Amino acid sequence: MIRNVDLNADMGEGFGPWSMGDDGALLDIVTSANVACGFHAGDPDVMAQTMRMAAQNEVGIGAHPGFADLKGFGRRQLPLGQDEIANAVAYQLGAAQAMARRAGGQVRHLKLHGALANMASVDHQLAKTCYQAALDIDPDIIIMVLAATAQEEAARALGCHWAGEIFSDRAYNNDATLVDRSLPGAVLHDAKVAAPRILDMLKAGAIIAESGKYIPCQIDTICLHGDTPGAVAMARGIRDHLSEAGITLAPLAGPAQTR
Amino acid sequence: MIRNVDLNADMGEGFGPWSMGDDGALLDIVTSANVACGFHAGDPDVMAQTMRMAAQNEVGIGAHPGFADLKGFGRRQLPLGQDEIANAVAYQLGAAQAMARRAGGQVRHLKLHGALANMASVDHQLAKTCYQAALDIDPDIIIMVLAATAQEEAARALGCHWAGEIFSDRAYNNDATLVDRSLPGAVLHDAKVAAPRILDMLKAGAIIAESGKYIPCQIDTICLHGDTPGAVAMARGIRDHLSEAGITLAPLAGPAQTR
Amino acid sequence: MIRNVDLNADMGEGFGPWSMGDDGALLDIVTSANVACGFHAGDPDVMAQTMRMAAQNEVGIGAHPGFADLKGFGRRQLPLGQDEIANAVAYQLGAAQAMARRAGGQVRHLKLHGALANMASVDHQLAKTCYQAALDIDPDIIIMVLAATAQEEAARALGCHWAGEIFSDRAYNNDATLVDRSLPGAVLHDAKVAAPRILDMLKAGAIIAESGKYIPCQIDTICLHGDTPGAVAMARGIRDHLSEAGITLAPLAGPAQTR
Amino acid sequence: MIRNVDLNADMGEGFGPWSMGDDGALLDIVTSANVACGFHAGDPDVMAQTMRMAAQNEVGIGAHPGFADLKGFGRRQLPLGQDEIANAVAYQLGAAQAMARRAGGQVRHLKLHGALANMASVDHQLAKTCYQAALDIDPDIIIMVLAATAQEEAARALGCHWAGEIFSDRAYNNDATLVDRSLPGAVLHDAKVAAPRILDMLKAGAIIAESGKYIPCQIDTICLHGDTPGAVAMARGIRDHLSEAGITLAPLAGPAQTR
Repeated sequence: MIRNVDLNADMGEGFGPWSMGDDGALLDIVTSANVACGFHAGDPDVMAQTMRMAAQNEVGIGAHPGFADLKGFGRRQLPLGQDEIANAVAYQLGAAQAMARRAGGQVRHLKLHGALANMASVDHQLAKTCYQAALDIDPDIIIMVLAATAQEEAARALGCHWAGEIFSDRAYNNDATLVDRSLPGAVLHDAKVAAPRILDMLKAGAIIAESGKYIPCQIDTICLHGDTPGAVAMARGIRDHLSEAGITLAPLAGPAQTR
Repeated sequence: MIRNVDLNADMGEGFGPWSMGDDGALLDIVTSANVACGFHAGDPDVMAQTMRMAAQNEVGIGAHPGFADLKGFGRRQLPLGQDEIANAVAYQLGAAQAMARRAGGQVRHLKLHGALANMASVDHQLAKTCYQAALDIDPDIIIMVLAATAQEEAARALGCHWAGEIFSDRAYNNDATLVDRSLPGAVLHDAKVAAPRILDMLKAGAIIAESGKYIPCQIDTICLHGDTPGAVAMARGIRDHLSEAGITLAPLAGPAQTR
Repeated sequence: MIRNVDLNADMGEGFGPWSMGDDGALLDIVTSANVACGFHAGDPDVMAQTMRMAAQNEVGIGAHPGFADLKGFGRRQLPLGQDEIANAVAYQLGAAQAMARRAGGQVRHLKLHGALANMASVDHQLAKTCYQAALDIDPDIIIMVLAATAQEEAARALGCHWAGEIFSDRAYNNDATLVDRSLPGAVLHDAKVAAPRILDMLKAGAIIAESGKYIPCQIDTICLHGDTPGAVAMARGIRDHLSEAGITLAPLAGPAQTR
Repeated sequence: MIRNVDLNADMGEGFGPWSMGDDGALLDIVTSANVACGFHAGDPDVMAQTMRMAAQNEVGIGAHPGFADLKGFGRRQLPLGQDEIANAVAYQLGAAQAMARRAGGQVRHLKLHGALANMASVDHQLAKTCYQAALDIDPDIIIMVLAATAQEEAARALGCHWAGEIFSDRAYNNDATLVDRSLPGAVLHDAKVAAPRILDMLKAGAIIAESGKYIPCQIDTICLHGDTPGAVAMARGIRDHLSEAGITLAPLAGPAQTR
């Protein structure tokens, strides 16, 4: 039974005059914030404000690099070379480190965003390229990986600190991939359904697929979402349910805790 | 008489398919490279390549932040608030640090670019804001300032490491400002004229204005230009002239040397 | 007494994943839409959708060009040359014309956005440059000008079709400029206050300054706002008040109506 | 035997401070200019200048839309939906029309750029989407298509004015596709080789593949390149060779000439 877990959410996804999600409300719920780094969302001012709030709330700060594609929000797969992707990840991580330092915090973890994350979850080499670029900058950084995917495989191969992540609101296939969004039941919208399911997974130390199949894996953090209607209420409901069940919710503990 | 001096030039000013200047040739001449950080020029790939070449040539790497204005090449004054400017400087410096680390080097100095530099050369408070943002990220960084301007004043007030810079190819007014580009003689194009003039300034430890007036100041580095026709030949001519006169040309020595 | 008036609002101010304001609701209220053209907000997809909705609602379509500054939402004054500004206006108008045509409509008017509008309201030459660029593309376009400013002066000098605009929610100084936003009472938030005031201005054919002074001017259109909380309710309140008072609300009638 | 042909080249591919190719020299050689529209290259100022020069030289002006990807120069395939691509083409064409009008010319043809062109040359539906978007804006526009590809097929299906294009400097496979750039002989660099080959194709009214196979097709225009070293000299050499052989070089004649 997993007794300690981190709750993470994407944040700082505004840009200039535009905002997205209710970061203030989410920061009372999560224990780790994945902060956009200016390529698919976020700008230096949004980053500064988001990280300052995160630091004040003692929420762990993570760099959340994506493709340089504001219009597509980093959700479109771009055909970049390995070097280009490594450079993009390093650039964004460096920028995030600087912004975190000025905000009185530090970047503790890295999580890939959108299309880059999707690509890395099925492409072991791409995942390694991204993670190695980050480790070149900070060998102690915690790599947040989608549990039981090529992302985890890459992190294990690199021998770095990593944290396994599962989704709070997505149904899983038998191979630990996500059920396609277009299928019924693929996305959960009700904390009353999602929260007990997550608790079951923590108890089992496994992803529980839609079919009922158990896929044992290391679960260190749970991904919440904040940018859809009702998202904050659902995140709050999941947190409360886990908390009442005796799960300790705390930021990723860093090198000492992870392997 | 000043016997040691650094030669600096702006580099990495390409973007995507576009290149600017002959960085390869310049890196054989200068001892410090001011590398664009992706806001007014440069992108992660250009930065990576430029810094790798600089590190290989043992040329000191500097971050060269500017306004987020590719179209205007950072040469247009943008009305940003102090916080926005601080965030922009910190973001770019952080990104540069990461890119330098992956290139096998490190960011040793910071020099403001274009309109931001111009504004800071007459606005002591703005200069302090920029430099403090950089020092928040790296307290040991060397701030390259336009000698005898509000930039120098700000660096002195902050008590940080700094290096005084003069231009190799621009005429000076009596108050150490540059003669307006539109006036005859404002820009020198001939190394045979520029090189002896620079040597005179080093001997005197002073800027020598167009009028002949001496403005005593600390000269640690000389700015060369690389992005105009004939620029590389002129830079080479200046280097050779100084070298033959017994001046030691070396990168800024860092904290130990500067005050 | 003015008996026919147009109600206009800025629209299509989203970009990629980000939205702004409730265009759907506003399109039931206004008779003209000022559509962002992709430089300070908007993108081809947002433009297409906004214009399609406007055409379906028989709302007049206008091009709303601004500075190329997504981050600053076109609210920062950029130091561009006259040629650059003319090119930027022409480019945006051309793009808007194409998008309107595909949406089954056409661009009827042009209104400058943000900092560009502010600059043109006090700089007769800049206003002329912008308007001439638009007239070069479409000699019949209606130029929407801030009544009794340098914008109107420029349109009159060009002898083009124009429409005089007043604000529904801003207090005026005695010289027809707007009371600074930072002063109390500068911005009205209550339709119960704003609507009778607008009606008084229509009856008088004059801007009524905060001091009570009457500034006679041509009033063809009233600017509503849609991007703040309560904005749609206020816009609806103003429309209903004018309608109940017997004012006919209709799109700008084009060349035949204007002089 | 084809006795009249157009020579086209991509132009206006600078952006802000960066230039590309020698448009001035090319405009003395070509009869049609494909002008970048600000998405993958070009900006309103570059467009204005390029089109003014083209109009003065009586070179036909074409819109050359591409993906919104300055960094990748429109050479990266982006996964956009059909609607998004149609909107992007329409937006760019509209902008180009406006810029051409102010430059004293008009947009006569449309040619897709880079990755968008590559995708459309093998995807009949995508090509139709792009061309229909352009025809919605201007039913008389001439669509420049890669001869004997899905581009031509789409233009034929739409029943619009079109012009078939062959490359001056690329080897062809037996199915009229281009030999991969990485293979030896794929790109010709010598006018002495390229010019007679083009003349042979005009005489035969066919693409002549590397194998010697003849692929009969309509040839209305020949693509020259201007952005590589030696490109201008090669373009000049090809023009002179064709000219001396009695071929008339003239802009696409518009609706009356094409079918």
